[in-house]
Amino acid sequence: MENEVKVLDNGFARLVDFVGGDRSAATSARISTMTKGDEKDDAKLVRYLIKMKHGTPFEHSYFTFYIKCPLLVARQWFRHRISSYNEMSMRYVLADRDYYVPADLTDSQKERYVAAVENSFDTYEELVQDELRKELARGVLPVSTYTQFYWTVNARALMNFLDLRLDIAAQYEIREYAKVLHGFFLDKMPYTAQAFEDLILGNLETPRTEKDL
Amino acid sequence: MENEVKVLDNGFARLVDFVGGDRSAATSARISTMTKGDEKDDAKLVRYLIKMKHGTPFEHSYFTFYIKCPLLVARQWFRHRISSYNEMSMRYVLADRDYYVPADLTDSQKERYVAAVENSFDTYEELVQDELRKELARGVLPVSTYTQFYWTVNARALMNFLDLRLDIAAQYEIREYAKVLHGFFLDKMPYTAQAFEDLILGNLETPRTEKDL
Amino acid sequence: MENEVKVLDNGFARLVDFVGGDRSAATSARISTMTKGDEKDDAKLVRYLIKMKHGTPFEHSYFTFYIKCPLLVARQWFRHRISSYNEMSMRYVLADRDYYVPADLTDSQKERYVAAVENSFDTYEELVQDELRKELARGVLPVSTYTQFYWTVNARALMNFLDLRLDIAAQYEIREYAKVLHGFFLDKMPYTAQAFEDLILGNLETPRTEKDL
Amino acid sequence: MENEVKVLDNGFARLVDFVGGDRSAATSARISTMTKGDEKDDAKLVRYLIKMKHGTPFEHSYFTFYIKCPLLVARQWFRHRISSYNEMSMRYVLADRDYYVPADLTDSQKERYVAAVENSFDTYEELVQDELRKELARGVLPVSTYTQFYWTVNARALMNFLDLRLDIAAQYEIREYAKVLHGFFLDKMPYTAQAFEDLILGNLETPRTEKDL
Repeated sequence: MENEVKVLDNGFARLVDFVGGDRSAATSARISTMTKGDEKDDAKLVRYLIKMKHGTPFEHSYFTFYIKCPLLVARQWFRHRISSYNEMSMRYVLADRDYYVPADLTDSQKERYVAAVENSFDTYEELVQDELRKELARGVLPVSTYTQFYWTVNARALMNFLDLRLDIAAQYEIREYAKVLHGFFLDKMPYTAQAFEDLILGNLETPRTEKDL
Repeated sequence: MENEVKVLDNGFARLVDFVGGDRSAATSARISTMTKGDEKDDAKLVRYLIKMKHGTPFEHSYFTFYIKCPLLVARQWFRHRISSYNEMSMRYVLADRDYYVPADLTDSQKERYVAAVENSFDTYEELVQDELRKELARGVLPVSTYTQFYWTVNARALMNFLDLRLDIAAQYEIREYAKVLHGFFLDKMPYTAQAFEDLILGNLETPRTEKDL
Repeated sequence: MENEVKVLDNGFARLVDFVGGDRSAATSARISTMTKGDEKDDAKLVRYLIKMKHGTPFEHSYFTFYIKCPLLVARQWFRHRISSYNEMSMRYVLADRDYYVPADLTDSQKERYVAAVENSFDTYEELVQDELRKELARGVLPVSTYTQFYWTVNARALMNFLDLRLDIAAQYEIREYAKVLHGFFLDKMPYTAQAFEDLILGNLETPRTEKDL
Repeated sequence: MENEVKVLDNGFARLVDFVGGDRSAATSARISTMTKGDEKDDAKLVRYLIKMKHGTPFEHSYFTFYIKCPLLVARQWFRHRISSYNEMSMRYVLADRDYYVPADLTDSQKERYVAAVENSFDTYEELVQDELRKELARGVLPVSTYTQFYWTVNARALMNFLDLRLDIAAQYEIREYAKVLHGFFLDKMPYTAQAFEDLILGNLETPRTEKDL
């Protein structure tokens, strides 16, 4: 898997750093019984841990992602509190004319959408040129504007993110990012990601309300 | 102090619920020495706890606020992770034409700012009327749009919020909310709030970079 | 339900403070759609929230408990990180000769168990009398010694605690405490507690490993 | 610095894994202004971040330690909640006759201390041999018994740990571990650790109560 994957019309998710892995999860779990365990038994063990809701062994594995996404997606993302964020700040940075346009607008909708957003950016740039502070001028910017941030998250919290954001009830846009992160997860922690898929995710097409819990 | 205080041009902060208080902080701290302690010594004790960075006794006091603020303020607010949020969702709710206009714009700036924002809301409403899903149509909405949320936070995390958001380096808009919360804090936990002011906040006019730490 | 319930041979759990409730959970959830909702629909709504894994509305309800339990139970308890603790400290407090003896020891086991523990307390008291600092003398104290602490936890984290600690795989001793907390939970948030039982807890006699997830 | 350092009479602290570093802290901080920055300016930047209480850039750096320490130290350690633990469990593992004896006991104190602890282990082993479950037999074990655990913590939470546990008010035993972790911290994040020492730790010999805050 490549380190950077395009998402939506102009966003991406990049894996910046990773530490831990299936082995780390299995090894840290085995301290409870002070056993060593063979690497070949790791897959079975992480499966058992997930089934038993033993989440802590997955907290020694950390992913750092660099994400570019629309503000409206970032607002959903930042609700996930057990993780770390550093984001570009439009108090200090002049916003680029870089915004998300949903793919499935009709031509007429797209025209009006783009016109409104372009008009907002025109005004934004005029206000900044008129020496209004960027932190105030941004008040006119649309929530489709792209932002960028670092996100560091452990495998346990990542699974929680994926569980909620891969769900059919999640908004399409953040689901697209979740799918890419899911790919990185499978790549770096294949046993854990597989057990998570089998035992927690289940059939994503079935709404959660209709599932047996 | 009244339960609801206006902030900015169209926002407010309301105290919805409170549990705990100075007495609770002092009592829970005294368990470490299994002493009872007089209420009259509570002020001195909470002062000592703050000086010694013993934060846990303040975690038994909880405030629930109902906040109405612009999205751009909410985005700063939601970076505070040790607390709980429930927010209105523009996936489901039709956004009101209700947005923040900074007070210190020049007439010309204000005119252009308002025109851009009004144009965005016009387009938003047209798109929704054209049956574009609200979760997509909102892409054109400005970050000055007002949102509303419940925020539950313990006194320790509230002090951390106030320390950062009352600071001269914080943006004016969120500082206005922080001042109101500071008032509620003083009202409900006068000893703790006073010690916090004296020992942590210090002189808010002096930038942190010039302070002795 | 009484405010204080005996647990094990010499411990107890006491409800000290509570804020929030089913109504608070339902009301804070309804902000997402900006609807008011009738109190009579609260039960159905909290059930839906639990099924959908929408945990945040339960984070506005807080319980403060005062717990007396053996150190060996406290060690399991304090692994639950999303909550707040203040505990008596044997650095400062002379430990009482107050310890847990399991009920199902044979006579011979009980005799040896008690003799060893009594001998430890004898030595502890001698060392303290000999002016060894309490923080060092306690090194001989058994992990069956009773400790006491305040615990403040929101309803979401409490459900997580109960899910793990009511489970048949949990140690009997902490399960006894969990049962009492479950009672307080049912008392204060009957709709939430009922939905939690039905949808999350399920049949506690079936080991989790044999359950469909 | 070696990867494993002895602490107390029979404990140690081992660095197992590390990700991030000064560069990571500086780079993630610079996203707020979308600047790249020279590596040679990293030291100055991390110093500024610490002075301004901007903690998030340090949350992308993670240390995993393997610790062996007495239960009485572990009990203090596990109060630090923003980090991850996996510990050996005496529900499953037969405890070794491996316990901490403070160095500064008098001969007479040491004799009584060791006799009591040895007697406790004798009884423990008899009870287990008599088929009492380990999880109950351990009730007689002293809190000086050594335990072992994995601890994963980010640099921000590590600084908080060091701030509290290097302090003259902390118990000698945990301070000895804190000193070793401080060494690993200096080794892996020299700029950050230096700024932390200068700006937060200050003179460790001065009690916090006598410091200007």
